[in-house]
Amino acid sequence: MRTIVTGGAGFIGSHLIDRLVQRGDEVIVIDNLSSGVIEFIQGHIDSNQVQFFNIDLKSLEQIKPIFVGIDMVFHLAANPDIRLGTKITDTDLNEGTIVTYNVLEAMRLADVKKIAFASSSVVYGEDAPMPTPENHGPSIPISLYGASKQAGEGLIGAYVGTFGLQAWIFRFANIIGHRGTHGVIFDFIHKLKADPTRLEVLGNGLQEKSYMEVCDCVDAILHVVSKTDQALNLYNLGSHDTCSVRNIAAIVVRETGNEGASIEYTGGDRGWAGDIPKAMLAIDRLEALGFRINYDSEEAVAHTTRVLIKEIMG
Amino acid sequence: MRTIVTGGAGFIGSHLIDRLVQRGDEVIVIDNLSSGVIEFIQGHIDSNQVQFFNIDLKSLEQIKPIFVGIDMVFHLAANPDIRLGTKITDTDLNEGTIVTYNVLEAMRLADVKKIAFASSSVVYGEDAPMPTPENHGPSIPISLYGASKQAGEGLIGAYVGTFGLQAWIFRFANIIGHRGTHGVIFDFIHKLKADPTRLEVLGNGLQEKSYMEVCDCVDAILHVVSKTDQALNLYNLGSHDTCSVRNIAAIVVRETGNEGASIEYTGGDRGWAGDIPKAMLAIDRLEALGFRINYDSEEAVAHTTRVLIKEIMG
Repeated sequence: MRTIVTGGAGFIGSHLIDRLVQRGDEVIVIDNLSSGVIEFIQGHIDSNQVQFFNIDLKSLEQIKPIFVGIDMVFHLAANPDIRLGTKITDTDLNEGTIVTYNVLEAMRLADVKKIAFASSSVVYGEDAPMPTPENHGPSIPISLYGASKQAGEGLIGAYVGTFGLQAWIFRFANIIGHRGTHGVIFDFIHKLKADPTRLEVLGNGLQEKSYMEVCDCVDAILHVVSKTDQALNLYNLGSHDTCSVRNIAAIVVRETGNEGASIEYTGGDRGWAGDIPKAMLAIDRLEALGFRINYDSEEAVAHTTRVLIKEIMG
Repeated sequence: MRTIVTGGAGFIGSHLIDRLVQRGDEVIVIDNLSSGVIEFIQGHIDSNQVQFFNIDLKSLEQIKPIFVGIDMVFHLAANPDIRLGTKITDTDLNEGTIVTYNVLEAMRLADVKKIAFASSSVVYGEDAPMPTPENHGPSIPISLYGASKQAGEGLIGAYVGTFGLQAWIFRFANIIGHRGTHGVIFDFIHKLKADPTRLEVLGNGLQEKSYMEVCDCVDAILHVVSKTDQALNLYNLGSHDTCSVRNIAAIVVRETGNEGASIEYTGGDRGWAGDIPKAMLAIDRLEALGFRINYDSEEAVAHTTRVLIKEIMG
């Protein structure tokens, strides 16, 4: 199987590639390394199991030839920083919505039929019931990142309905783990590395979200793709519970050995404008396919904290 | 009140402007006349009640200065031809999604806070319950037109959630009436004008959709905006029933005096790839605000057929 992974040098992409290489896929990575890290996949490149293109997906002309003869695309490339949209408003449009259009168009032109897409729980917007089922509506995101993920879903739906593509849309909870390059745990460890005496927490710390360990995430993606065959398959990926930001702060302070650090909250019920303070996805549909996750939220946070401390603190 | 209407020279936009001028708004129209018709608003321009800018909304730089000092934006500009996306895949992205981003960004930069947006029933995608309530989910469109409308909703949600805009999103049924420039009735009359002996109908004619008369539509928009004040207000606009394409064909054949014409169906359950064969919106939320429509679907079709015959046949 010839597989493209967009954003394959990124956090989740590199874990997915570990699995795809293991099962014997010919893997082609397209990544402009804007947030990807080539070292994550260098071993596979060196052993000729991954072909790497340092190309920007914003150029349809440049990516078109790469799609010829491909069986399936895992489209993970995106700006990973949700907060960025509060400062720079066109990144998610360009790196998200337009890039997804380019990927779909390159697929159409090369007659590639299968795509899996990394969407997000943030497409559900605010005030969704917890846990949130896939059929919750209306789904109106409140961040530009969320808008670009929702726009990606809609474009995929259009290509399925109009041009006969087959698609798997995955709405991710907060994915954390080994090789994490952003997010709350990553931020906390970096802050404590810079100043072990204090930890600034955005918001009042009562934000409460569901976390999924990255290996659970990529295993779930491959499990769902292998077990489903609708024209459009929509699945939440997450865990069974939530973990509060206060709890994460306590875990990171403990695991880094900085029990004495003062934890300072900036206040307010959310980390930034467009943040969704409480989120938890229903994963009944995932589990009905026989998939079991290894880590619930707090275990995933503790595990991730330990591996990221090694990566960041050295 | 200083009001911008994007796409103001178009079918629905020009009717909205009639109302806004009547109530005394200072109206500014931005329209590139790609499908708009300047004659629709020439009278208001001549009497200095409407200021017209023939500018393409794809240029953020060009539109920015126009937004300074504006109280509210009615964003109606879009490619009106749903079928076009089956042939040209980037029109809805450019004229829909990116234009909506530009409008929102121009608003943010000029500190304009209120926007009303013309979305569509097609955002609900396929297999939605009939009538479809606003909270139906998941909403995954199957046409590129639908994808651009959904992307517009998401961008609006993001600007509401992140930058404090206030928004009214209207999901339109099929809007028909005086000055119609596209759609099934318009097409049928043109076909019969070219050849009064036969009428080709796309699909098997059993497609069945809800139609709303354009004056009902613009009255409903203004009613909802005046009666609601949430940060984000989401309303279906439609009528209480549906009208089949077979029925529309019969009405158009009768009203044009071509009872002898043979009606020929191309077959298949939908008009084109990405068409949604059956659609009807729940309008309980609209009616709960005290609004009553004048025409149900079949009356709206018959009324529209009569006025379009005059406009097209002369």
